[in-house]
Amino acid sequence: MDWIITESNLFSPQDIDRQGNKLLMGNGYIGYRGTLEEFNKDQKTATIVSGLYDKVGDLWREPINLPNGCFVQVIYQGKPLHVLTSKVLEHTQFLDIYHGIHERNTIFETQDGTQITVHSRRFASLANHHLICMGYSISANRECEVDIHTGIDGDVWDINGPHLQTIVPSEKDGIISLSALTHENSVPVAVSESIAFPAGGSQTSLTRMSKARKFAAIREINAVRIQGTLTFHKFIAHFTGLDAPDPVEASRQLCQQAAALGFDALLQEHNALWAQRWADCDIQIEGDAPAEQALRFSMYHLLAIAPMHTEHASIPARGLSGQVYKGAIFWDTEIFMLPFFDYAFPALARNLLLYRYHTLDGARRKASEYGFRGAFYAWESQDAGNDACTLFNITDVFTNRPMRTYFRDKQVHISGDVAYAFWQYYTTTGDGSIWPDGGAEVVFECARFFLSYTYYNLDKHRYEILDVTGPDEYHERVHNNTFTNRLVSHTLDICVQVAAFLQENYPESYKELIDNLGFEQDLKLIAEVAQAIFLPDKIAPGAIIPQFDGYFKLEDVPLKTLLAQKLNPYEYLGGGNGLATTTQILKQGDVVLTLFLFNDLYPLETKLANWEFYEPRTEHGSSLSACSYSLIASQFGKVDWAYKYFMKTATIDLTGEGKQYVGPLYIGGTHPAGNGGAWMSAVFGLCGIRTVGETLTIQPHLPSHWKKVALSLVFRGQKFKITLTSSSITVQLAHHLKSPMSISVGERTYSLPQTGEISIPIG
Amino acid sequence: MDWIITESNLFSPQDIDRQGNKLLMGNGYIGYRGTLEEFNKDQKTATIVSGLYDKVGDLWREPINLPNGCFVQVIYQGKPLHVLTSKVLEHTQFLDIYHGIHERNTIFETQDGTQITVHSRRFASLANHHLICMGYSISANRECEVDIHTGIDGDVWDINGPHLQTIVPSEKDGIISLSALTHENSVPVAVSESIAFPAGGSQTSLTRMSKARKFAAIREINAVRIQGTLTFHKFIAHFTGLDAPDPVEASRQLCQQAAALGFDALLQEHNALWAQRWADCDIQIEGDAPAEQALRFSMYHLLAIAPMHTEHASIPARGLSGQVYKGAIFWDTEIFMLPFFDYAFPALARNLLLYRYHTLDGARRKASEYGFRGAFYAWESQDAGNDACTLFNITDVFTNRPMRTYFRDKQVHISGDVAYAFWQYYTTTGDGSIWPDGGAEVVFECARFFLSYTYYNLDKHRYEILDVTGPDEYHERVHNNTFTNRLVSHTLDICVQVAAFLQENYPESYKELIDNLGFEQDLKLIAEVAQAIFLPDKIAPGAIIPQFDGYFKLEDVPLKTLLAQKLNPYEYLGGGNGLATTTQILKQGDVVLTLFLFNDLYPLETKLANWEFYEPRTEHGSSLSACSYSLIASQFGKVDWAYKYFMKTATIDLTGEGKQYVGPLYIGGTHPAGNGGAWMSAVFGLCGIRTVGETLTIQPHLPSHWKKVALSLVFRGQKFKITLTSSSITVQLAHHLKSPMSISVGERTYSLPQTGEISIPIG
Repeated sequence: MDWIITESNLFSPQDIDRQGNKLLMGNGYIGYRGTLEEFNKDQKTATIVSGLYDKVGDLWREPINLPNGCFVQVIYQGKPLHVLTSKVLEHTQFLDIYHGIHERNTIFETQDGTQITVHSRRFASLANHHLICMGYSISANRECEVDIHTGIDGDVWDINGPHLQTIVPSEKDGIISLSALTHENSVPVAVSESIAFPAGGSQTSLTRMSKARKFAAIREINAVRIQGTLTFHKFIAHFTGLDAPDPVEASRQLCQQAAALGFDALLQEHNALWAQRWADCDIQIEGDAPAEQALRFSMYHLLAIAPMHTEHASIPARGLSGQVYKGAIFWDTEIFMLPFFDYAFPALARNLLLYRYHTLDGARRKASEYGFRGAFYAWESQDAGNDACTLFNITDVFTNRPMRTYFRDKQVHISGDVAYAFWQYYTTTGDGSIWPDGGAEVVFECARFFLSYTYYNLDKHRYEILDVTGPDEYHERVHNNTFTNRLVSHTLDICVQVAAFLQENYPESYKELIDNLGFEQDLKLIAEVAQAIFLPDKIAPGAIIPQFDGYFKLEDVPLKTLLAQKLNPYEYLGGGNGLATTTQILKQGDVVLTLFLFNDLYPLETKLANWEFYEPRTEHGSSLSACSYSLIASQFGKVDWAYKYFMKTATIDLTGEGKQYVGPLYIGGTHPAGNGGAWMSAVFGLCGIRTVGETLTIQPHLPSHWKKVALSLVFRGQKFKITLTSSSITVQLAHHLKSPMSISVGERTYSLPQTGEISIPIG
Repeated sequence: MDWIITESNLFSPQDIDRQGNKLLMGNGYIGYRGTLEEFNKDQKTATIVSGLYDKVGDLWREPINLPNGCFVQVIYQGKPLHVLTSKVLEHTQFLDIYHGIHERNTIFETQDGTQITVHSRRFASLANHHLICMGYSISANRECEVDIHTGIDGDVWDINGPHLQTIVPSEKDGIISLSALTHENSVPVAVSESIAFPAGGSQTSLTRMSKARKFAAIREINAVRIQGTLTFHKFIAHFTGLDAPDPVEASRQLCQQAAALGFDALLQEHNALWAQRWADCDIQIEGDAPAEQALRFSMYHLLAIAPMHTEHASIPARGLSGQVYKGAIFWDTEIFMLPFFDYAFPALARNLLLYRYHTLDGARRKASEYGFRGAFYAWESQDAGNDACTLFNITDVFTNRPMRTYFRDKQVHISGDVAYAFWQYYTTTGDGSIWPDGGAEVVFECARFFLSYTYYNLDKHRYEILDVTGPDEYHERVHNNTFTNRLVSHTLDICVQVAAFLQENYPESYKELIDNLGFEQDLKLIAEVAQAIFLPDKIAPGAIIPQFDGYFKLEDVPLKTLLAQKLNPYEYLGGGNGLATTTQILKQGDVVLTLFLFNDLYPLETKLANWEFYEPRTEHGSSLSACSYSLIASQFGKVDWAYKYFMKTATIDLTGEGKQYVGPLYIGGTHPAGNGGAWMSAVFGLCGIRTVGETLTIQPHLPSHWKKVALSLVFRGQKFKITLTSSSITVQLAHHLKSPMSISVGERTYSLPQTGEISIPIG
């Protein structure tokens, strides 16, 4: 039962929002919120499609919410059965995260005492990403008649819309369609639906297109007799002009094919693909069912939104759960989500990385806009890599004026994050083809950007990185942010290494790239600058690393004291006049995240000292924060803290306790970076699994109630199942070892056998 | 009568504040506000002493207000005669700016209908800067008796006090004294007073020390018969522990000496010295009495507060008119006031400059505090050159929280201003001895500071000045502020020139200084860096110079529109979230001030284009602003604008229309930078007099109603009287020409005669 997430409440609007996120289903192309079939835009129904964005006037550019093909409204004696307006005896929603299936079961009592049960089951097909399939059943405790309105609702929830115009309903061969054009670029989109009623039923003959609803293609199927259980199926196909030249035609064809195959066959195919996914990544935790469920739930959400179908899209910061944060891709993907994919689904990781290659021109444009060379990746990246972030990204609650923030201008670390992610992918998967396939160009251009961003301090004989914002956004425009300097240094270093690798292994690609980019001279300079970057973390073991120049001079105020000074619950703690701006209070892990990203550089005493210094100063105002504190706490044995922060990040979308609104602005949605952080906290942190070169190192720090952990992962093409207990570490090879590898536990290193397993006693 | 400033109103508290400033008298050691003898701290009486500061707890450090020795209260039938509480038939105050004498004349009508006239006359002696002398007369329209309370009131006005403690009254040989200790450093201060009643009067026998007032030494002289006019004189001596080991004793002795000399002799001596001053600097403007008076008034105020007695003090931003702005010395002195002294009173200019030499260690400490080398002069400098500016120097009106500002941290241009002022003094006076006497050390250390502040941009092959605030404080923390970059470049350039001059003319001083400072290597680097400083004003003639990197990308909003957005009349337009911060609106001349300071670098079309671009964008939120707009407008013949801005700066303390309060905080006082700006606008601007090398260049742009201007100045030791009309320029030598000099008018250059005058027809 741990695979089934169950919710039995939905009667407040807040619950509807929360469950919409939590019970989301998706296949990487479509994200469909966990709402009910009778809902509409007021309850935030959404069919978010990956990679298509639109902008209306001066409003924020954001993803398209497609027409809602899952719409079903049962009407009894002229009154709709609706959980918000009807009498509900029982209601439950389920999300089967093993199969990616959403179910609902609701017993309504009508004004005449009839009990009518509706049950639905739907999934976004993993076999065909354009397809959502749904089974819908109606039963009653006595024979009765209902009307059914179902079809495609084009009057959708938008934050900065409406994005769809010229909405045209149509019907052909029993398939209904709704087509429209996007506002900004007139991209055509279409949703079609075919419906399968039980054979021999007379209801289809009663179907007619409703004219009652605007912007919709709705079938009105009236006087449907309910005798026992009536089940019908809907096959909903979604296409945009980015996928097919004629989205209406493509969606109709898919509806026909799907209807021909039938619901059960489609479900079987879908289930098999989800089962394969879990075989590749599942983690079992004996002794801690809540943790196990939370972790699987986190992985489910990452998988539901990963673009398996394209390398031209990536995972937005709020996944496919809506239009929040402009549907934009942040550094969240590279730093917090990619490790999960690197170690379980390298092909998906590759897609996510190549999205950055395909948007490299956008990053070049941004660099140029700010007077730099190379690639300055967008803080909020969409389809073309342009930065969707505005200069005034927050509203001041005291004056209601837009507040100048520097997210867009100064978070240069994102180019370092992207380069870091490519390198991590390469070292984890061993896939050197990523470099000629675009990775080298990305890394070169990121390094070039930093070359042009860096300044030489004549007096201190070092290169410095000035005027940046690090992960802690409460402190904007600081100098020599340790996190950023480290990433710059790393980018320059790997640029030199990638160049050498490419030259040796893909000499033609190398020559072409160096020539095309005119990179020869820059490469030399990069190698020079890399030797003399100022690294503020190069200090005595156990010393406190400054987050940036002058950090220690800021007011050292306790977090509680600071929060007590708030005059308005929604006031922003950063920005020009924020309460935290002039203090040591940080929004999220910054130095501590550095300790994690460059794990091998720091002795344990440095990690301990810095964790203890920064932890009480961290507000955790971002969902990105908890995991780094968990990860580092594991290493020096603060397992209680590591566990606390692990559970915090793993349950973020289960509890839905994160901020949902800032003033009137909805900022809720899923938190894929938190989901990825949960995986990292469990695998890298508590299980202590890391890889260095060809060696798997394992140093578990399991909570005492975790009796056994079993997990699957893939490292340099080799699949393993690793089982940890308090007394042993067992590594089982899923297939014959392809090349020599070793495993390091404590001070000792063991060669892996060619096949079978190795078990190493510990403790 | 133009020399007499007359005020006949004083009945609102606002008038009292304004007249306190406007009618101030002073001698550079003491500033005494233009208040009445019966006033106390509630009416902001103040005897501000130059160069002595005090700090109480965490409050702002500010100048000492000495006990008020001018206190006189006449009492009739038990009721004090007081302009604010008595019936006043007539009241006038006068300031004789030719002699620096304050007078008042008031006719009171008592409850029984007696008309009592009090008249006083006082001056802060130019012959002895510790001394204030006063004559006080009482007459009545019928014989009567009054009581007179007079003496020293130690219960003084303080903004961040009380600064005086252990206040002890004493009396010896008929001289009363009040001594006290300052709070912070227990510096002793004392004020003594001797009084001279008409010979043969019986009143002195009635004198007794009053116990009615706390913190005071007051004589109660009762039952004084008024028959005709009774006149008595007070001699008040002021000393601090910085002047004398025993201030009480020193002040008593001075009182004795003064009383022995008598009021008339002291007045004569004082008047002669003021007359000499005017002979050296007066400007006559035929055809514009208001402008002439305003300009003389401006010069009077500069002279009244210039430290003639010491090179250890300079002129604070609010002069000696109170404790506003912490009594601190800003760049105002170097850039806006010094030119007047350079061209009229080189010895005073030298004192002002050497103050910077004597506070060099403070500037070194500040540089070191921020991680730099050399001298980073204080934004708000006091006795030791420490920076009195706080990091939170403004209060946010919306939250009532202190607002982080960067005046202290980022206005690095002040070191450039100081160096610039030394160089201007040297080129104007020809006094090369300033270099071995401290000037070289100051310039070297300023250049060294910039050397350590500068960063090299590898990509653009240039040195840049990052993260600074220029004169326009609404835009903090900008990069490559043209004004700052120019001053840095200038500082580095003159450092090299001063080093060469010193080496040639004072080789021993040179060697000693270079060795002491360990400057050899830095001097080489300075010469190198000076060649490659980025100068954003090196652009095509007529192009608009960017105020700083990215300035043109800011919102281009009309000033009126911006001001209309204010939600609170006192809201600060700069700072983190200020309305102007994200727009092109500037507080005060920045590029336009650069055009003035580096006048010879820019063609006229560049000046015109930039003036026209920046003028409508300037809020003139600082009294420093108007003069630069006047100065540049003169050059391209916008004489109406030049005159408008000249009058604005020249009348700033006459009208007293400047801001007096920010919230509850009094920020009023005199505006010596505005006074200096008036002189520059008139002489450099409208009269078009500039000096380059050994050449006097004159290109007048006189307003059409100025029939004739005659002015005196001194240039390289040579005194001139220059007379301008619409048809001729006449230069009259005050003494035999010491070395060859020329005068350039339009395209032509004329050698000056050895003696006599030269008259050049123009127009």
